[in-house]
This record gives sequence, structure tokens and C-alpha cells, in this order.
Amino acid sequence: MRGKFVGVGVGPGDPELITVKAVKTLKTADVISTPKAHENKPSLALAIVKHILEERERPPEVLELVFPMTKDKEELKSSWSENARIIAEKVETGKTIAFITLGDPMFYSTFIYLCQRMTEEHPEVNLEIIPGVTSLTACAAVSKIPLAEKNEVVAIIPSGIDSNRIGEIAKHANSLVLMKGSKGLKKLVPILEKSGFTKNSTIVLVRRCSMPEEKVMIGKLGDVKNWDIHEDYFSISIIKENEIQNNKKENVT
Amino acid sequence: MRGKFVGVGVGPGDPELITVKAVKTLKTADVISTPKAHENKPSLALAIVKHILEERERPPEVLELVFPMTKDKEELKSSWSENARIIAEKVETGKTIAFITLGDPMFYSTFIYLCQRMTEEHPEVNLEIIPGVTSLTACAAVSKIPLAEKNEVVAIIPSGIDSNRIGEIAKHANSLVLMKGSKGLKKLVPILEKSGFTKNSTIVLVRRCSMPEEKVMIGKLGDVKNWDIHEDYFSISIIKENEIQNNKKENVT
Repeated sequence: MRGKFVGVGVGPGDPELITVKAVKTLKTADVISTPKAHENKPSLALAIVKHILEERERPPEVLELVFPMTKDKEELKSSWSENARIIAEKVETGKTIAFITLGDPMFYSTFIYLCQRMTEEHPEVNLEIIPGVTSLTACAAVSKIPLAEKNEVVAIIPSGIDSNRIGEIAKHANSLVLMKGSKGLKKLVPILEKSGFTKNSTIVLVRRCSMPEEKVMIGKLGDVKNWDIHEDYFSISIIKENEIQNNKKENVT
Repeated sequence: MRGKFVGVGVGPGDPELITVKAVKTLKTADVISTPKAHENKPSLALAIVKHILEERERPPEVLELVFPMTKDKEELKSSWSENARIIAEKVETGKTIAFITLGDPMFYSTFIYLCQRMTEEHPEVNLEIIPGVTSLTACAAVSKIPLAEKNEVVAIIPSGIDSNRIGEIAKHANSLVLMKGSKGLKKLVPILEKSGFTKNSTIVLVRRCSMPEEKVMIGKLGDVKNWDIHEDYFSISIIKENEIQNNKKENVT
């Protein structure tokens, strides 16, 4: 039997927000691989699929791949290369290796780096990708605020983007999504208010969406200055140009 | 028992790209409701979940709600209101009504209009939303082209946006996603080439992603003029500023 390497999106956090296809793969894969930023930090993706793996008669090998949290490009690249080599060797023996990632494998994920090393350095490896529910739409679902409707343009902005650039983007978008982090949100509000958004624009801030610690804040852009914002990497904001009818008042759950 | 109204994302087309949570809801809901644009056109969302409904011992009531394909806002609004009323009445009797939508309920979906009428006109109705895999990340998965990595800004552009506005957005984004339709793509290329993208920028055009008729085209922006593009509402393009290493050559599957 031919082995393969499968990138598996496990969804935003709720173990039931994983796809049937992902579950099938995790029930049969020989090896479950997961990224680990720090040696002593448990993998969140692994926690989401734990119950699936525990139900297996024959437990899979769990391969936690450590990636250095460095900005040194060469060090990073050689680390991805080494991990790609480890996986490619296992695939060669006919094994299926499922690499699990939070959300979706092709959306701001560590899988992308590994996938790039794999296709460049081991093009013979049979590669599959199973998409997952992103925190993007999970946040819209939990807050009941549409991410995009009709002819609305949506801009997705990762952390670390200069606020002036965000202002320029805001001028041309109807909805903004600020990914990964709530840091700097209060400072960004006056810039957005000069870029087509107003004090009455709707804002949703979701921390740890669909996880047990989930916290949802809904209000107007003008209210953000009074919000008690807990900084968390797993935070997402959706900012909509218009005031949303059904969320006229500040609503914190 | 208290009834509820549940918006259920069924994913992009592949029946296995539905979440476990959605399957659970569809296995127990009293009523499965689906939007229908035309009386004589079968519902795609219903086709995706057909096998789940067929496995049920006690089949659910299937409620196909017809929405007029009109641009008359008042006619549309009264049509949504009428459908919200029908559903609210059923919820009142303790029933669970699952409204299924292709992809995700809060991402360019007809569910949004119904949801708005429901929260405004029947605020007593218990409302839940189950997010789904969008065609956005499904297209990235099938083409093996990342939707977004590191500090890339992504702009999602629905159909009907003026090409000059797309050009302005392109100046500030690293990736563009053109939703719903391939019409006008060839005419857009020269505009993108003046807005930060180049002849060597990567483009992916996916028609009917994850469905049996799926077609994937991958190439450079400069190649698009020679592409034989079949116009289809269920088409998505992902355009990445940079040339992607592992897709140097035009690759049509």
C-alpha cells in the first residue's frame, strides 16, 4: 500500500467542529503528527482530537514535531526540512501520516511551511489536504454577526501589520477581521474611524472561540475604549462598517 | 422540550467535509429546511446531506423555502419575513428546525437574511449557528496553494465589485479571493498587474470545489489570457502576489 502525508484541519477548538473526513483519517492513520512550539507546552490540536485517538483499538504513533520559535529564517527552514525528512521516510514505508492543525491547514498555519518543504524536497510524497472550519466563521457563528453578506468586501489582517496600512485597507473594505491577538485594538479604533468606519460600526471580539474558555464581546467601535480586553493570542475581532440591527446594545457574554 | 432554529453549514460540496456537530443536528432535527432559488431547481445543500437523512429511522420533514430571485428589496424582505414566521411557528411547538446552507451560514449565505428577520421579528426564538468549511479553504486545500501565511493580508471580493475598486484593494493585499464566478477574470488581469501583482503572481481557479465536477487550474497571472474559462457561479479564484515555488508551471487538472 502506498503511504501518504495528510494535512488535517481539526477546526477552531470544539471537538465536534471537526469534519467527518478528518475523523476518518484520524481513525486510520498510522502516525498522528502535531506541531509543538515549545517542548513543555501541550499541543492544542492534539487535545481536540484526543477522544478520537482514544477510541482507536490500535493507538497510532504520536509524533510531536518541535519547531523553534525563532525569526532566523535559515534556522527555521532547516528545522522544517528536518521534519519533512522524518515524515517522508515514514511515508516511504507505506505509512499514512496525518499532520493535525488548529482551524484549517492552509490558513495561517504551521502546516504551510512543512508542506512547502515537502513539495520542494520530497516531491514523490503523496500529499493530501483536508480543509477545516476556521476561527473566522466560528466567531461569526458564535456572535451571530455575519462575516460577509451580499457585495461586502472582507479584509483579513494578521497580527503585526502596521496600523497605517490597516487604515488604508479599511478604506476599501466593508468588514475587517483582525487575526491572532487583541493587542493594539484600542489604539486602532481612531484610525478606523478615519477610514470609513464610525463610532457606530459593529465590533465583535471573540477570545478562544468554541473552546471552554470562550468569551464574546459585541458592541460598537465607539465602546471599545471602555472594554476590559484580556490579551490573548487566540482572539479574533470582526469589525463591520454598519451598525447591526440585532445588536444595538453592548452585549458581553 | 424547547424548540430551536439552527443554521447549519454543510461545507463546500464533498459530503465528508461536513462537521460532526452538523451531522448530529441533521440526525435528530424534526425539520430540515433548505433555500430554493427556483421552484424547479434542486437544492445543492440538500443533495450533500441526503445520505445522512436517508439513514434516519424516522425521516425528518423537509421544508424547501422558496426565495424570489428579485432585486426588489421590499419583495425580498417580505419573503424572508414570511419564511421566518413559518419557522418560528414550528419552533414554538417545540420542534428543532435545521436550515442547511452550502459552506458556512455566516459567509455570503441566504441564511443571513433569514437570521436577520428571525432575530428582529421573532427574538424569542432560540437560535444556534453551526459553522462549516468554506469553499475558500477548500480551494486552497485542493490546489495546495496557501490561502494566507505569516503576515499576509487577504481580501475577499464577492462578484459585482467594480474592477477599479478591486484594483485599489489589490494595492493593499497580498492575496485576493474572487468569490462566486469567473466572469470578467481576463479583463481584471491588467488591472491587477498595475496594482502590486505581476505576470508571475500565482493564480488558482477552482470550479465546483470538492464536488464531482471539480476542475482546478493553477498558473501565473500572465497565463490567464490563454485559459479556456468556463463561466460558473460556483467558481473561486485565489490570486497570490508571489510566485509559488511548487507550482512554477501551468498545471491544469
